[in-house]
Amino acid sequence: MGGGTLTILAENGGEIARKLGFRLRVAAVCSRNPAARRWPASLEPALVTSDWREVVAHPAVEIVAELVGGTGVAAEIVEGALRAGKSVVTANKELVALRGPELWRLAEENGAALAMEASVCGGIPIHAVLREGIAGDRIEALFGILNGTSNYILTEIEQHGAPFDAVLAEAQRLGYAEADPAADVDGYDARSKLALLASLAFGVRLDPAVIHTEGIRRVAPIDFEYARQLGCTIRLLCSARREGGGLFVSVRPALLPLRTIMAGVRGAYNAVWVRGAYGADTFYYGRGAGPLPTGVAVVSDLMRVARELRPAPAHRVPPFAARELAAAEPLPIGQQQRPWYLRFRIKDRPGIIRDLAAILASQSVSIDAVLQLPEQDKQNLPFVITLESSPESSVRAALQEMAALDFMVEPPLAMPIEKGL
Amino acid sequence: MGGGTLTILAENGGEIARKLGFRLRVAAVCSRNPAARRWPASLEPALVTSDWREVVAHPAVEIVAELVGGTGVAAEIVEGALRAGKSVVTANKELVALRGPELWRLAEENGAALAMEASVCGGIPIHAVLREGIAGDRIEALFGILNGTSNYILTEIEQHGAPFDAVLAEAQRLGYAEADPAADVDGYDARSKLALLASLAFGVRLDPAVIHTEGIRRVAPIDFEYARQLGCTIRLLCSARREGGGLFVSVRPALLPLRTIMAGVRGAYNAVWVRGAYGADTFYYGRGAGPLPTGVAVVSDLMRVARELRPAPAHRVPPFAARELAAAEPLPIGQQQRPWYLRFRIKDRPGIIRDLAAILASQSVSIDAVLQLPEQDKQNLPFVITLESSPESSVRAALQEMAALDFMVEPPLAMPIEKGL
Repeated sequence: MGGGTLTILAENGGEIARKLGFRLRVAAVCSRNPAARRWPASLEPALVTSDWREVVAHPAVEIVAELVGGTGVAAEIVEGALRAGKSVVTANKELVALRGPELWRLAEENGAALAMEASVCGGIPIHAVLREGIAGDRIEALFGILNGTSNYILTEIEQHGAPFDAVLAEAQRLGYAEADPAADVDGYDARSKLALLASLAFGVRLDPAVIHTEGIRRVAPIDFEYARQLGCTIRLLCSARREGGGLFVSVRPALLPLRTIMAGVRGAYNAVWVRGAYGADTFYYGRGAGPLPTGVAVVSDLMRVARELRPAPAHRVPPFAARELAAAEPLPIGQQQRPWYLRFRIKDRPGIIRDLAAILASQSVSIDAVLQLPEQDKQNLPFVITLESSPESSVRAALQEMAALDFMVEPPLAMPIEKGL
Repeated sequence: MGGGTLTILAENGGEIARKLGFRLRVAAVCSRNPAARRWPASLEPALVTSDWREVVAHPAVEIVAELVGGTGVAAEIVEGALRAGKSVVTANKELVALRGPELWRLAEENGAALAMEASVCGGIPIHAVLREGIAGDRIEALFGILNGTSNYILTEIEQHGAPFDAVLAEAQRLGYAEADPAADVDGYDARSKLALLASLAFGVRLDPAVIHTEGIRRVAPIDFEYARQLGCTIRLLCSARREGGGLFVSVRPALLPLRTIMAGVRGAYNAVWVRGAYGADTFYYGRGAGPLPTGVAVVSDLMRVARELRPAPAHRVPPFAARELAAAEPLPIGQQQRPWYLRFRIKDRPGIIRDLAAILASQSVSIDAVLQLPEQDKQNLPFVITLESSPESSVRAALQEMAALDFMVEPPLAMPIEKGL
């Protein structure tokens, strides 16, 4: 990450100076192994060290770019810099999601700026968009595809019909997925990013841990076939929607209409869909990560902060976005009304639809359609029931009852259908 | 346009103040017919007038929003305000495309800010993205779907197979197209917008009149059928690409792969695709126009400018984007190398492919494929030749020679195939 930033600062310095009206200079570099010097010679930092404290203390340093990651030494660096009155640019999603509001306060108390464009969707300038570009709007909903690895896996299943485990193994072989893929495929990485974006979009502070989160491990090739019959595909959808004064927030696989631009997000890309009360729908798409896309975000932040630091301290204007974030509890997800896709695997025998329909009716949930692809294994028969818009709590209650039926090969898989995108 | 801006300022004032840390107040309103008062009562401007000079002279007015349009009185207002040292927010595409650099200079000379997010792609915050979000990148190429009306017409032809004239008439009936549709369907509106975006992306000043521009009048339903055979669709594509130190700039219908996210832009939407040297591809999508989306852009600009005006004049930092725009001549479009789609309408007889192939060979242009859909009228037979990547000048020379052949029902239609999007 540091390498990408230094490359851009070295190679693109002229254009950066032309845009800013002054040059950005790399005064100091802190690296675990300073002897390796993996940055362009033209940068010539006055100080190269393996002790971050020397960087923070260096008199020529006005802005510290924290590109370490994690919440250990990175937190020490960010706090140390801010306490010393130095501004900070960070690409650290975990740190900002976990301790963002506290760090904002620390920055303000010390007259320093804190910028974090690179911390979420590195390749998409979504902070600039929410903070300035559409600042005048009131955001009603934000949807995102925020994890490149899981999107890569889902689109591989979509295109090649291979099962999840095989696609994951191949992604791991190619280095697209970690040896421990849980953060990606179980939705935890996306959840941190959604918490960050929600704070920017809605001005609330959300603990990632309270966000309803489901991963993609159970999504099978057959689900893409049924989804296609419904004119849809499947994506790991991050969603935050205002409704009746509250906020529904979730990370889960969902059906999206194939005709929407969101369904066209394939491979290791990220995308954010914003619905404003006034500006209607806008959509942003780009690389989620990578040293150079992240470097662009870091350098663009450095430029903005450098510009903000030009006036003497007494004349600086505090940064744009609201820092008085209200702590928010999301609405209970069970209250959310959605049309639903339920996929079953059963041992076939007469009366199955009758039994399932009776349970749904007892929860006052209406069936929209029953789909069954031909030529399936009768002992492990996948079929689908779609439901009209129904409260999630009623659907969950029905699913629990269904899971106990003797003909179920596995618990039903339920996904909301997001028709409105 | 003014109505949308005033609505947002009235209804969303609380959220705007929360983000900014202070309130925006509407001090004065100038309207052709002040008695009509088509704004929310809560705004209570101190001055309502039909004379813009009173607004500019009003001591409480710090920022003037010019939402008149055109280059007549609008130019007087913008110039008058800037000369009086008042900052200006404008939604005026024609004015900025025609006299942007001059107005930037005027603003700077008078210590005023000039903002114009709403002047191009009203619903997409593309100025904020280029100016701040990805400021650190070096833009290699920018592609856009910048005219909602022509995109609506093309996607109607795509979906319903109706001919251009019928779709245009229907669009006019529905109010989606003007009585005189030339600016939209002949590409002139898109051309102004591309000139603006190119100045932001590449830091050059481009006269819209020098941009190679072709409209969509000749695109027929059969072209979508052939395009589909090639895995493509057709859009009015605005394109500006760096190549060998120069810039190729054009507005023209082009084939885009169906799998690209750009091909999913349907109806009266706008989209911008940016390719950076470091940040790779990013994509932005939203409403091109409309009072409220444009109002969001105007209000977001008002917020940014208000914030920039907070420090006393001596402590203000000049705005971000470069104002020293180098006047640029685009590269001659004939030098551009592209794969091509050529569609012919001919009276069928033996030897036609031989004659066309001989002309192409004489220009050293290689044929990629010959496509012919079944069951067509032999007296007006549409068929397609695709070409491998070839210089546009050679293709043009071949087309001119072909147009004179006795079996041609009409001159061939040529469109580049943009595979790389």
